[in-house]
Amino acid sequence: MASLNSIFSYFVPKDRIFFLLFEQAATNLSKMGETLVEAVNTSNIEDRNIKIKELEDLEHTGDDITHQIFLELSKNFITPFDREDIHYLASAIDDVADYIHGSTNRILYYKVEYISEYVKKLAELINQSTKELETAVRELRDMKNLRKITDACVRINSIENQSDYVFDTAVAYLFEFETNAIELIKQKEVLSTLEKATDKCEDAANVIESIIVKYA
Amino acid sequence: MASLNSIFSYFVPKDRIFFLLFEQAATNLSKMGETLVEAVNTSNIEDRNIKIKELEDLEHTGDDITHQIFLELSKNFITPFDREDIHYLASAIDDVADYIHGSTNRILYYKVEYISEYVKKLAELINQSTKELETAVRELRDMKNLRKITDACVRINSIENQSDYVFDTAVAYLFEFETNAIELIKQKEVLSTLEKATDKCEDAANVIESIIVKYA
Amino acid sequence: MASLNSIFSYFVPKDRIFFLLFEQAATNLSKMGETLVEAVNTSNIEDRNIKIKELEDLEHTGDDITHQIFLELSKNFITPFDREDIHYLASAIDDVADYIHGSTNRILYYKVEYISEYVKKLAELINQSTKELETAVRELRDMKNLRKITDACVRINSIENQSDYVFDTAVAYLFEFETNAIELIKQKEVLSTLEKATDKCEDAANVIESIIVKYA
Repeated sequence: MASLNSIFSYFVPKDRIFFLLFEQAATNLSKMGETLVEAVNTSNIEDRNIKIKELEDLEHTGDDITHQIFLELSKNFITPFDREDIHYLASAIDDVADYIHGSTNRILYYKVEYISEYVKKLAELINQSTKELETAVRELRDMKNLRKITDACVRINSIENQSDYVFDTAVAYLFEFETNAIELIKQKEVLSTLEKATDKCEDAANVIESIIVKYA
Repeated sequence: MASLNSIFSYFVPKDRIFFLLFEQAATNLSKMGETLVEAVNTSNIEDRNIKIKELEDLEHTGDDITHQIFLELSKNFITPFDREDIHYLASAIDDVADYIHGSTNRILYYKVEYISEYVKKLAELINQSTKELETAVRELRDMKNLRKITDACVRINSIENQSDYVFDTAVAYLFEFETNAIELIKQKEVLSTLEKATDKCEDAANVIESIIVKYA
Repeated sequence: MASLNSIFSYFVPKDRIFFLLFEQAATNLSKMGETLVEAVNTSNIEDRNIKIKELEDLEHTGDDITHQIFLELSKNFITPFDREDIHYLASAIDDVADYIHGSTNRILYYKVEYISEYVKKLAELINQSTKELETAVRELRDMKNLRKITDACVRINSIENQSDYVFDTAVAYLFEFETNAIELIKQKEVLSTLEKATDKCEDAANVIESIIVKYA
């Protein structure tokens, strides 16, 4: 990954490298969204563990891309938008990846066997949110279709609100019906990690919105 | 809210709009502090739920103000103090509002019936802290009374230390005497969300202190 | 502390004061790493509490140093590296100190009697990480030995990965074998606070890496 991008960086105009890297990061994240949905929707534990392993690999790929964005940021004085916005956007995308991976890692390590409908619903919302984020990021390159960016960001915000609601309902349900405190803690940890992934998608959308207000 | 401010923004000197918005944000937060104290001090559950609904509305108002500060920041090249300080201060005030609202939302969703003296004490400390923050923010406009700003910030820091102590004592108490693990988790969640509100007040005070060191 | 540094600041070239303060902060943190290891490795509760008290004092010393770095940042237009990097590095070091102190404070307040091998292992990793951080910070002054800085940062990243693994294994173990939910919550809190200390060491190392890429 890194070495391939190093080759690219000789041919791509200096400030264009950021669009390329952000697109790679957003596509990778979108792939994680899909894999997450697959992981929580299979009831075969071996299949699930294969998907969880895939998510770990994707998360490492994401780490490499983030690292390269920071490196390019250190090397380039000219950037297509504010340095701090590049930093925030890369960090937010990286955080989404961390929380997606963190949620399935908890399922694996804590031997969570029961995957509730709430968990599946949150995974679905995260997947949608990563798709919208990819759309918004891809439009940053030429900024010709601002409406498309804004609409995607509005939907990411709306998805985050829905996720809050699903999370609150899920935890309220646990407190009402789960009598085994240790199982409750496990389930709550998984839900909370998933919910944070949508928070970070919203952070990314907020950065994108502030970028287009400034540059459009 | 937003439309009213849009009208204002035609008449207010460009860099003055930030003082106006910060004052609105601080007043709204101070109102949340009062409403929080009322919410946790009534033993009538219907009355409490009315207050919790009020907090939700106030939190939405706060969101609108924060959003407008970020918009103004994107549009204005001239700002009364460093752009990053405006960003940090607006975010910190927004975070306080989120945590206040988050704490009562947990009381509502998790059907927390018993409101301990620790919870009431933390609500009282949050209320005091939002009052001090409002004082400090109001003085930013002309910076004539720096001592008043510094004193308010010192008190916010001291309140945060007191909150840490109340929180630690409360959780130690739960671990010692609460034998129902699920009730313990609920109570700990509410306490921890309240405590974070005072942390964020301190963050806001730290930004204000760094502003006055630079500009005074 | 503050007054001693105030005297120094008259004699030290204006941008050199930051190196002096960062070295003090890193040395203080390294001392906290050692004291943490001592605290969790004694089985005598009185001895442990003495060490926990020492950690509290060291954390206050650290707070003073952080505060002075922020003050110097506000007063000086010329800084040896980017203002935001100074801010991030000071904050990250301060956060490590907070989490170290927070972990032993929880042991004290929650009356945690059993110190597991996982807790001891995390303390050991934190201690190593603070040592590496001190090495990297000391080399920032003249930047003559970049390899030494990079190597230290790589090791800090590797220690963070090891800590993640120890934490995940420890919590998985708790979920499998700890049948007392309240004891499980206590132990998990201590482990999670320790793990966050290594995260913040990594944050500090990342700032240092970005500084040397820009200035070397």
